Amino acid sequence: MIETLADLGEAELLRRLAGFAPVGQLDDDTACLGADPRPLLVNTDVLVDGIHFSDGTTAPMDAGWRAVAANLSDLAASGADHVDGITVALVAPGTTPWSWVNGLYEGIAAALEQHGGVLLGGDCSTGSQRLISITALGRLGPLRLHRNAARPGDVLVTSGPHGLSRLGLALLQNDRHLPDGDLPETLKAAAVAQHRRPIPRFDALKALVNCKPAQLPWRAGGTDSSDGLLAAVQALCSSSGCGAELDHARLPRPGQWPLGEPWDRWCMTGGEDFELVLSLPEDWAEAWLSALPGSQRFGRITANPDSLIWSGDHAAVELSGSGFDHYRSA
Amino acid sequence: MIETLADLGEAELLRRLAGFAPVGQLDDDTACLGADPRPLLVNTDVLVDGIHFSDGTTAPMDAGWRAVAANLSDLAASGADHVDGITVALVAPGTTPWSWVNGLYEGIAAALEQHGGVLLGGDCSTGSQRLISITALGRLGPLRLHRNAARPGDVLVTSGPHGLSRLGLALLQNDRHLPDGDLPETLKAAAVAQHRRPIPRFDALKALVNCKPAQLPWRAGGTDSSDGLLAAVQALCSSSGCGAELDHARLPRPGQWPLGEPWDRWCMTGGEDFELVLSLPEDWAEAWLSALPGSQRFGRITANPDSLIWSGDHAAVELSGSGFDHYRSA
Repeated sequence: MIETLADLGEAELLRRLAGFAPVGQLDDDTACLGADPRPLLVNTDVLVDGIHFSDGTTAPMDAGWRAVAANLSDLAASGADHVDGITVALVAPGTTPWSWVNGLYEGIAAALEQHGGVLLGGDCSTGSQRLISITALGRLGPLRLHRNAARPGDVLVTSGPHGLSRLGLALLQNDRHLPDGDLPETLKAAAVAQHRRPIPRFDALKALVNCKPAQLPWRAGGTDSSDGLLAAVQALCSSSGCGAELDHARLPRPGQWPLGEPWDRWCMTGGEDFELVLSLPEDWAEAWLSALPGSQRFGRITANPDSLIWSGDHAAVELSGSGFDHYRSA
Repeated sequence: MIETLADLGEAELLRRLAGFAPVGQLDDDTACLGADPRPLLVNTDVLVDGIHFSDGTTAPMDAGWRAVAANLSDLAASGADHVDGITVALVAPGTTPWSWVNGLYEGIAAALEQHGGVLLGGDCSTGSQRLISITALGRLGPLRLHRNAARPGDVLVTSGPHGLSRLGLALLQNDRHLPDGDLPETLKAAAVAQHRRPIPRFDALKALVNCKPAQLPWRAGGTDSSDGLLAAVQALCSSSGCGAELDHARLPRPGQWPLGEPWDRWCMTGGEDFELVLSLPEDWAEAWLSALPGSQRFGRITANPDSLIWSGDHAAVELSGSGFDHYRSA
């Protein structure tokens, strides 16, 4: 007999969820964060069943982990060096098994345990579809990364390879377009792990802060690649009034990544790899690439607004199926 | 021809929503709140179509206003004397008219304009059901109101009448159980207004801070009556390990409120009146009641854990249909 949320009722559900927060944390109408002189960074992300996760590809613990990782990645990509915690709004039908919610919150707790911060508060309601909306709170370190701080002449760098999460999803979905049987097992394992348990790159931010050449100001363009590498570059260019030249040979492909379609497209637009994508002065970029294994240089910022070209033949970067639109694909 | 979210696509939707925030506010991965030495209060509430609002009873502007008011009421009931702003996660099917979303955000902006704070950030996604999850951020003033700070001997007071919002809902729903035709027009108008445009009681908090007798410490039990007056008293008692004696003659009934069923029940369990419910030492209570028109004393805190009785005959307070359970009523 499966115990559902309707069996529990709201009071018992809230009592059980409180077990995932510090004692007494959920007892008041609000959470209180002690006085802290550092600026506060805030981010909200919503993840919807069937769109951002699904029972077929994502165990409840992984859904919880990914929801937290997606939010913390935004904090890292803004310069946060401390995580206060998160609030969670949970919506789920009364037919939802408690075991699913329990797994979700175990994943949330595991991600917080790994990266810092606690469950600060939240709310729950019934609804026709499972979803969680998470708001993450953190403190700004010495470097505020802005999307609008890219400058012509900057080098484009990223903290790691791209496309793994998209491949992981295809493997978990048994996608029939996948070339079967001939992918290295290590690549497949890395892809599934990246999809299930992405890591917010606080380590890459820390390396960036630590390696800044003394003569340079604290100015760097940055975002994360939650919507894909190309979308990250487009966001930097659009907000900064710049363009970019991408180096096809140096795309941040994962190790053992096959050539051709759909591989380069997945690398550039697959999304959910949650790496930092930065626009840095040459010296700072070189220092960071030396300091951070797995990081890669893949292009350069230009002065031509919103122009995205390949560095060799200067052809426009055009990718079929680029960008994921929640509304248009619905 | 109705313009839907699917017609707009995600990029255009985000562009239009950014118009409700300060210029550039939604441009980064996170919102940044400047350094502030005061403790931060955080609250998250989720409102779901068909449960917390519906097209039949709530215009989109009113849904937006109520969503913000519900969140800010929690801040007021915790002691916040400054509102930084909110983040909004919007989930809506692609078939949702843009005019509905526009109205929702106009209501959000109007409530923020009235009470302070700006739209700090957010997220949006398609989904099968319209809902918004709001996280509100504010700063703690001199008094932190806690649910667990009620003490035996305290007086129970509230900032205003209860039951109006429930009556307003019944009127908007043309509830057939309503006694027809014989309710005063002024009561009906007040009820509909309270349901559509509830006011977070920052004014009542300010009065409370200003009238504290100098010899008393900054200790007061408090919460808001979003889930109903009785639920607020139960929350104070349960968190504080106390009980309460309620004075039936002094229930905070609205002016011209009829006698009998369902009126007293709606007063005690109707919910969504968003008044402050406080547990105060006698002297502080008297000072507050004098300072705040419309406030009322309605009971006393006792030392008997979780015992809720009427002050006259000491009978247990028992109300049919008390408390609303999202899950059980679904």
